[in-house]
Amino acid sequence: MDLSVVAGTVPEPTTDSINAAVKAMQEAGGADVIVSLGGGSVMDVAKCANAVLMNGGSILDYEDGAEGQRPISKLLPHVALPTTAGTGSEATIWAVFIDPSRRFKTAIQSPDLVPDAAILDPELTITMPPHVTAGTGMDALTHAIEAFVSIYANPLTEALCVKAIELVARNLRTAVADGGDLGARTNMLIASYMAGLAFSNSSLGIVHTLAEAMGGYYRIPHGVTNALMLPHVMEFNASATPGRFATIARLMGEDTGGATTDTAAEMSWRAVRRLSEEVGLPQTLRQVGVRKEDLTGMIAIADKWANLSGNPRDVKREDIEEIYLRAY
Amino acid sequence: MDLSVVAGTVPEPTTDSINAAVKAMQEAGGADVIVSLGGGSVMDVAKCANAVLMNGGSILDYEDGAEGQRPISKLLPHVALPTTAGTGSEATIWAVFIDPSRRFKTAIQSPDLVPDAAILDPELTITMPPHVTAGTGMDALTHAIEAFVSIYANPLTEALCVKAIELVARNLRTAVADGGDLGARTNMLIASYMAGLAFSNSSLGIVHTLAEAMGGYYRIPHGVTNALMLPHVMEFNASATPGRFATIARLMGEDTGGATTDTAAEMSWRAVRRLSEEVGLPQTLRQVGVRKEDLTGMIAIADKWANLSGNPRDVKREDIEEIYLRAY
Repeated sequence: MDLSVVAGTVPEPTTDSINAAVKAMQEAGGADVIVSLGGGSVMDVAKCANAVLMNGGSILDYEDGAEGQRPISKLLPHVALPTTAGTGSEATIWAVFIDPSRRFKTAIQSPDLVPDAAILDPELTITMPPHVTAGTGMDALTHAIEAFVSIYANPLTEALCVKAIELVARNLRTAVADGGDLGARTNMLIASYMAGLAFSNSSLGIVHTLAEAMGGYYRIPHGVTNALMLPHVMEFNASATPGRFATIARLMGEDTGGATTDTAAEMSWRAVRRLSEEVGLPQTLRQVGVRKEDLTGMIAIADKWANLSGNPRDVKREDIEEIYLRAY
Repeated sequence: MDLSVVAGTVPEPTTDSINAAVKAMQEAGGADVIVSLGGGSVMDVAKCANAVLMNGGSILDYEDGAEGQRPISKLLPHVALPTTAGTGSEATIWAVFIDPSRRFKTAIQSPDLVPDAAILDPELTITMPPHVTAGTGMDALTHAIEAFVSIYANPLTEALCVKAIELVARNLRTAVADGGDLGARTNMLIASYMAGLAFSNSSLGIVHTLAEAMGGYYRIPHGVTNALMLPHVMEFNASATPGRFATIARLMGEDTGGATTDTAAEMSWRAVRRLSEEVGLPQTLRQVGVRKEDLTGMIAIADKWANLSGNPRDVKREDIEEIYLRAY
């Protein structure tokens, strides 16, 4: 068997990253199977390149929700080996990329894009530096929390989310502090995988809408943008489903015994924010370099997509503005 | 498209049931897709007939663990529509049948035997009479509990089991008392499916070993034999993993606050026995017609297989004897 290596995928990949991967695969004479070894960016480029290689055209032809969207009718087998624990792309129907010409983070999706095999090997994640461990870990937590409170949640996705939230709460600090701890690394990989299974079936909420609107403007790691928005969106959403947020507080390790549901719900986003701080992530949009003058554009994009998500509370343009400003 | 109906599958099917189904399918000129509409017996006959139809020979050629076992290398697509909520066969790698010549309940297994689609429609289960609802529901609970305490459990199977146990504890009484309650029926179907997913990946314990040894001797519904053995085996196993059994007690709705782990563990099998009684199932082997003189044969069969299961505690022949006698 011949092995061709397509290397050099950038973090938060663009249409150009995908074109380059397709070209490299064509120059190698095609492929029988695609093996992706990397984080979400690598797995997503593999998914996108697979779609283009097998179905022709360019990646924007398959963009989710685009006018004249073409179906992804065939794909090469894809084996995914994640080297981060966060995106869950090894378990999802999604592949995310940036279209720089529109400053827009967008995606393709199909049930067939779920990799045929996912190999969760903690040894592959131990060299991940602390800040990447932290950002990707908060990405997994965001998936699990957003899927858990989604209006499309079902008992199966709920069960996956409950376990994933608990695993992140119990293991992320250790994985960041001691990257060689294989137990913590294993649990983070499993949490990320389970959260990916969950949100592929239950959709996500507006943390992702707001984070991806930001991701079209700035090459900030996706997990970091999620971590920035997550506690603020949780606070905004809590009134829609306080019982769920009270459960999240308990899963995050808070002692909710004796607390009212509303108080327990409040403990949930405080616990998430504390975790995000303790693993060393930035806490404001300003810290990651977001410029005030870009907010209007980000708000417009987020406003267009917010109510297509599974978010438990209806979202108006002014809500989005307020959430961004609180996080600023 | 032509539709051929292969009807008349008996509960707790035998090699004869499978031969008859294969013959009917051959007489119909083969098939493009198999749709099974029924309980575990129907879905399992469909799986077995599919294996024989596509790979030749007879069903015993594919028997799990048999000498000279042949691989199941191809299968027709299989769409399963369960009409009971218990076996989880729509989600499993297993198909169980009786070989009357050996008075032995045996199985085939392959990852490819998982049906390609499962349609969980609660309307299909509302005509199930209370005693069938009770027996099959206890089957789902047995799967969830045995998978949860299995030595092969992993975080993914654990998450599925936790939810499945909770769903059965909260919905089985209602489903038995008011068969038309679509909410309870839906939750039981989902519990059964999730428990099936779990035990296909984590294996089961000796409740199944003891129940199937009995099932080779008597045509007692599989769920009823499981319900009979379950509390006794839980009591036997509790010392191996008391924390897990304490969790089961909580999931069964017991107030374990303040109880020691051992006391909480004890509450788990008492809660299971109480549920089994309240849904009207028999509580002793004598009640279902087991003859004392058959115990020796059943013990010998169970002894041969017990330690191949995922049971959390090692099992000796005298343990099996004692458990059967306690249940007698």
